[in-house]
Amino acid sequence: MKKYFTLLAAVLLLISCGKKTNVNNITVKDISELNTALANAKPGDEIVMTNGDWKNVNIKFVAYGNQQNPITLKAETPGEVKITGTSDLKIGGEYLIVDGLHFVNGASPTDAVIDFGIDQDTVANHCKVINSAITDFNKAQRNMTDLWVRFRGRHNELDHCYIAGKSNRGPTVRIDLAGNNSIKNYHKITNNYFGPRPPKGGPSAETIQLGNSFTSMAPSHTVVANNFFDRCNGEVEVISSKTNFNEFRNNVFYKSEGSLVTRHGNYCIVDGNIFIGDEKSDQIGGVRLIGTGHWVTNNYFYNLNGQTFRSPLAVMNGIPKSPLNRYLQVTDVVVANNSWVNCVSPWQFGVGSNVDQKDILPKSEIRSATPIRTIVANNLIYNETPDKQPIVTHDSIDGILFKSNMINNQGGIFKTVDGLIQEDIAMTVAKGDILMPKKTMPDFKLYHGFEFDQIKTDLFGSPRADHNMVGAVVEKPSDKSDMMNISLYGPDWYNKDTAENSLTKTHTAATTTALISALSSANNGDTIVLSADRYEINSPLKINKKIVISGPSNNSKTTIQYSGASKSPAFEMHPKGELMLRNVHLNGQKEQYAFASLKESMSSLYNLTVENCIISDFDYVLKAYKYSFSEHITFESTSVLNCTNGLELSEETEDKGEYNAENITINNSTFDGVTRNVIDYYRGGYDESTVGGNLIITNSTFTHCGSKAEEGLLLNTYGIINVHLKNNEFIDNPVKLVARLWGAKNNNASGNEIKNSGELVVQENLPLKLMY
Amino acid sequence: MKKYFTLLAAVLLLISCGKKTNVNNITVKDISELNTALANAKPGDEIVMTNGDWKNVNIKFVAYGNQQNPITLKAETPGEVKITGTSDLKIGGEYLIVDGLHFVNGASPTDAVIDFGIDQDTVANHCKVINSAITDFNKAQRNMTDLWVRFRGRHNELDHCYIAGKSNRGPTVRIDLAGNNSIKNYHKITNNYFGPRPPKGGPSAETIQLGNSFTSMAPSHTVVANNFFDRCNGEVEVISSKTNFNEFRNNVFYKSEGSLVTRHGNYCIVDGNIFIGDEKSDQIGGVRLIGTGHWVTNNYFYNLNGQTFRSPLAVMNGIPKSPLNRYLQVTDVVVANNSWVNCVSPWQFGVGSNVDQKDILPKSEIRSATPIRTIVANNLIYNETPDKQPIVTHDSIDGILFKSNMINNQGGIFKTVDGLIQEDIAMTVAKGDILMPKKTMPDFKLYHGFEFDQIKTDLFGSPRADHNMVGAVVEKPSDKSDMMNISLYGPDWYNKDTAENSLTKTHTAATTTALISALSSANNGDTIVLSADRYEINSPLKINKKIVISGPSNNSKTTIQYSGASKSPAFEMHPKGELMLRNVHLNGQKEQYAFASLKESMSSLYNLTVENCIISDFDYVLKAYKYSFSEHITFESTSVLNCTNGLELSEETEDKGEYNAENITINNSTFDGVTRNVIDYYRGGYDESTVGGNLIITNSTFTHCGSKAEEGLLLNTYGIINVHLKNNEFIDNPVKLVARLWGAKNNNASGNEIKNSGELVVQENLPLKLMY
Repeated sequence: MKKYFTLLAAVLLLISCGKKTNVNNITVKDISELNTALANAKPGDEIVMTNGDWKNVNIKFVAYGNQQNPITLKAETPGEVKITGTSDLKIGGEYLIVDGLHFVNGASPTDAVIDFGIDQDTVANHCKVINSAITDFNKAQRNMTDLWVRFRGRHNELDHCYIAGKSNRGPTVRIDLAGNNSIKNYHKITNNYFGPRPPKGGPSAETIQLGNSFTSMAPSHTVVANNFFDRCNGEVEVISSKTNFNEFRNNVFYKSEGSLVTRHGNYCIVDGNIFIGDEKSDQIGGVRLIGTGHWVTNNYFYNLNGQTFRSPLAVMNGIPKSPLNRYLQVTDVVVANNSWVNCVSPWQFGVGSNVDQKDILPKSEIRSATPIRTIVANNLIYNETPDKQPIVTHDSIDGILFKSNMINNQGGIFKTVDGLIQEDIAMTVAKGDILMPKKTMPDFKLYHGFEFDQIKTDLFGSPRADHNMVGAVVEKPSDKSDMMNISLYGPDWYNKDTAENSLTKTHTAATTTALISALSSANNGDTIVLSADRYEINSPLKINKKIVISGPSNNSKTTIQYSGASKSPAFEMHPKGELMLRNVHLNGQKEQYAFASLKESMSSLYNLTVENCIISDFDYVLKAYKYSFSEHITFESTSVLNCTNGLELSEETEDKGEYNAENITINNSTFDGVTRNVIDYYRGGYDESTVGGNLIITNSTFTHCGSKAEEGLLLNTYGIINVHLKNNEFIDNPVKLVARLWGAKNNNASGNEIKNSGELVVQENLPLKLMY
Repeated sequence: MKKYFTLLAAVLLLISCGKKTNVNNITVKDISELNTALANAKPGDEIVMTNGDWKNVNIKFVAYGNQQNPITLKAETPGEVKITGTSDLKIGGEYLIVDGLHFVNGASPTDAVIDFGIDQDTVANHCKVINSAITDFNKAQRNMTDLWVRFRGRHNELDHCYIAGKSNRGPTVRIDLAGNNSIKNYHKITNNYFGPRPPKGGPSAETIQLGNSFTSMAPSHTVVANNFFDRCNGEVEVISSKTNFNEFRNNVFYKSEGSLVTRHGNYCIVDGNIFIGDEKSDQIGGVRLIGTGHWVTNNYFYNLNGQTFRSPLAVMNGIPKSPLNRYLQVTDVVVANNSWVNCVSPWQFGVGSNVDQKDILPKSEIRSATPIRTIVANNLIYNETPDKQPIVTHDSIDGILFKSNMINNQGGIFKTVDGLIQEDIAMTVAKGDILMPKKTMPDFKLYHGFEFDQIKTDLFGSPRADHNMVGAVVEKPSDKSDMMNISLYGPDWYNKDTAENSLTKTHTAATTTALISALSSANNGDTIVLSADRYEINSPLKINKKIVISGPSNNSKTTIQYSGASKSPAFEMHPKGELMLRNVHLNGQKEQYAFASLKESMSSLYNLTVENCIISDFDYVLKAYKYSFSEHITFESTSVLNCTNGLELSEETEDKGEYNAENITINNSTFDGVTRNVIDYYRGGYDESTVGGNLIITNSTFTHCGSKAEEGLLLNTYGIINVHLKNNEFIDNPVKLVARLWGAKNNNASGNEIKNSGELVVQENLPLKLMY
């Protein structure tokens, strides 16, 4: 009891010491008053923005506080100051704090929403943005680039913020290091909640990027710690570390379709992070390593199915004498005291080895340099069901030293390596879903490599010294908060519960007018049941929310006759529009489109599911305009009849790795009499690190299609990484080729019947345009 | 007085604190006793090697001292323990000291003479080699590679040592960083005297190399301070920094034909060094910069004539997205508060720009990336006579900010830049030969860039704060020793006076026997006068020292008739052989060679001067065998008559940038009836940073030569960088070409008369084999 009291007293003393000596409150209610207050700001000032909507404000917070007396810009009530419209915040100077703002319903007019810098000379130092949020702040189209937070200068912090939903081009947060005033920055990104970021369909959608290849020699020393990454699916890299001496500690990566990647730069620390996957996804990755001197310790990988670039541990091959922007060889890397639990093929070495492509790629693209001077030691792999191939060696592993690793593969036989011992080890819960070995291993000889004594604690901070144990956890934590408790992350005032907790409603529309009216008034997630037999629509139905439009019965189809203008769509997909159309016969007059995105201003993605429908007599079934993007397009148990064009998703012709949809799924459907572009799905530009899109066509029938197909090609999937054609019938299609699959990538076909429809060919290597 | 006393007391106290508590002296007199002592060494032991010759000893000093009680291996008397023969020293462990050894008359059997490491795991930490020397320790041939000192591990020191004369391949000292136990090494190379290193004729002859391109991402933090580099002419880089965060402080580079180069790696400090040139040499350079974040401050450059790669300040162009082993762009570099005094075209920017070679070189070789975010400020250029072009811009300088620099060009007109102010500034002596501005500049506005406040002191350590002055020196130092005092450097016991202070002698040889005898007994530097008219020699005369052999009069020629075996030379040039032959008619019998190197074991270079002679009736005038090297080959006022071959220096055919002679000079001479290889001088392999060899032919006549010349080429100078043909006559030579000069390099011809001898052509770009 006495001890506790002593400790408390010490804390109070510290708070007392750190107290501001000279706080001066200034309340401002509009941008003009704010500007005046900022112009006159002195150390110790607290400028309080009154609650409400601050629309179209460009705040330049340039001031000089000091360590004892920073200058603060804060919301009257945290979260109640909404920065909206064409707005941004630029911070320059020293010891500044921004507290409690919410950027929402707007977009930055510049290249950043929050910028720790005014220009190259006036950057921020010792400045913080805390307790704030950025949501719904996308630029009008996904090709318009910005950052939501840009770091420049030194010693800046982003803490306890909520940031989610960025869908336009550009990392969510980026550290810039060009210029000596931004190196050795020791920035901190801590305790934030990075909410869902949808896939962008192409590169440049990292959640955090630290530097770029041009500044990859810079010492950065940025710390990313105690953050929660919730479904950050923007692209293959959740975090892209491109500078030196960065530290990634105690973050949770929750079902995020990407990896923490040491892309450029060297000597990073990846310690005590948790990576959580999902049995249903093979897109969720772990740690991917490129370069020199990284230490990967105390991490916990759970339920991850990602492979190769997305594997739970991906140790890459490099390019010999790599160009600055390509792949440095892995050297002097240490992977120690980590746990992989229920992951599929968790250890992959020589990832990216592409010696077999040396005929079509320039020499400067061939990743033939295998990892060297690399140590993998004291790790644990635990599988509840046997894994056929826990270790995948894409190339030689002669340069890797495996020492004192342990696996329980439940007796499953696999090709192992020296230094991975099979033991019938039992597990117990350490905390929440985190497992640890049930018993200590007094006789097991752990490896003590150079500076392994620096791995002092485990995932939960318990000292390792007293324990002789492989893996990330050596002791059940007694006093550590559960890292899965999301209330630890982001601002207190922001509701991070992303489940749809508002009650959804079902509307019944007995007439066309009622349908139009219901669509307009429905809330996100509502359902409209079509109670009449037939609806006559003359202008596009706007889909700008999540909505289900359904005929009443699975056994019949309600007709929607669309007679709008030529080239207009029956259903116009707006940003955030998510349509499920069910039990409907949608009929056109040959000149219209059944579904189309907006031609421009697709600031967010749309989704489309068509189930148990007939789509007939349209010019296009789906027309995806340039810069539009859909995460899911699904046709289930649907017939497409007598249309000039089918699904057209091939507008991203700049060959920069972009594409128009992430997942296209067609099952149990029929395409008959579709003249051309039956499926036209395109991704151009060689960038091996982009790993989409995905096309799955199963149990479907294609007849009398493709009479006017370009190149006589029925299904055009040029550049798409994952294509699966299974158990389909292609009968009497007047084409030369059903499809041309990309053998080197994940393209495959099985169980298809092809009759009078040309051939299905596999081409190992496509000629591609290099993107860089 | 009292203050002084206080200081002294403090020093004594420190010494007292640092005193070893437990010294145990063990004297050893042979390797067996030494091994026993080493095997049992304990903290505090001092193992004393008795004076004398320790021949063929391979010392493995593996032991573990501690900070208070290191383990010392020392000479009974410093300098009196000679390590000779096939010997080396490997050091592994902690807190070890090696003191007073002299490695001489031998060679290492391994890849290093002194190695701070046993193998990759057992390296040295906190170990020192002090007060020692390495001289005459070359491997048998120059292509055999070794290091004289290799650093591995961390916190090791080379202090107060003398190291000179390395002529075989490999840097004299190298820091190795492969492996985490050798990064962040904080090694110190201090107070050493690096004596003359002769040119090697090709790459890999740096005096200090820090890392290599493969480890160029490693943080090194090596300090090279207070050393004297005396004519370190091995290659174009005296110091080649290839890692990060190295510091080069207060060194003197005295007439060293090379530069301090930040070749790979970034963020180095080059502060307070002195670079001294020589009016007679255009090979002596200053600082050459590649990469990011270097700070070049407080340096003093004097009398330097080097250009482009060797210019006093060479800021290079980079290759866009450079491969790891090529040229990173210069970014974020600061060059501030330096002085250039009496240097020719001292500032050169965009050095290495080679966009004009894009047709013959691959894209990955084109240095088109100009320096960016680079600051040149507060510097001083002072010329006693006007310089036509103080600033040479090989490419755009738009990315460089020039601020508050000052020049006194004595009114000479030149093309200047913004930020370089012309002032009639007067200079005064600061210390020794170092000049500084005579008057302060109260009205001059110095530039205060980011972190310029960190440049706290000047070249001599005087505080800058109180002075407003451009250049390296702001105040006459009062208490600082003269950096030019060579007694500060190296071991006390080593006589660094390199002038030949032993008296040389003249011998007279009246008979052949007397000549042979005199040659054998002569000391280095002696002269043998030939008093007879004719000498008959039947076997080669060995030249293994510096010797003059001279007929008595300039007006006549003494005959030496050589009748030795076929293909044997009259004069056999051994390592360190330097022959001046004067007033002699050397005659063969068509089958012999006049001069030749050894066929192997040319562990050091040879030199040859032939003055006022006739050389006739030989198969070869000079035959240079593979791996032999000569710094100077001079033919002055000499006739070469009726020989099958002339000067044959073309054995380095591996195309790795090597060549057989550095300087070939032919003046006022005649070549008549030389059938082929009149001059055959070859250097192969593209490596733009190798800047030799040198061929000067002036005022000479070539007649009836080349009837059997290869390709019909009289003078073959393929790959030689510097070729000057001036005021020669080429008459009646049955060849197609007199010479094919390399236009892109420093090849030129003027005032030559060519009659009935084919053409002299200039080819801008040679097809060359890339070396890497």
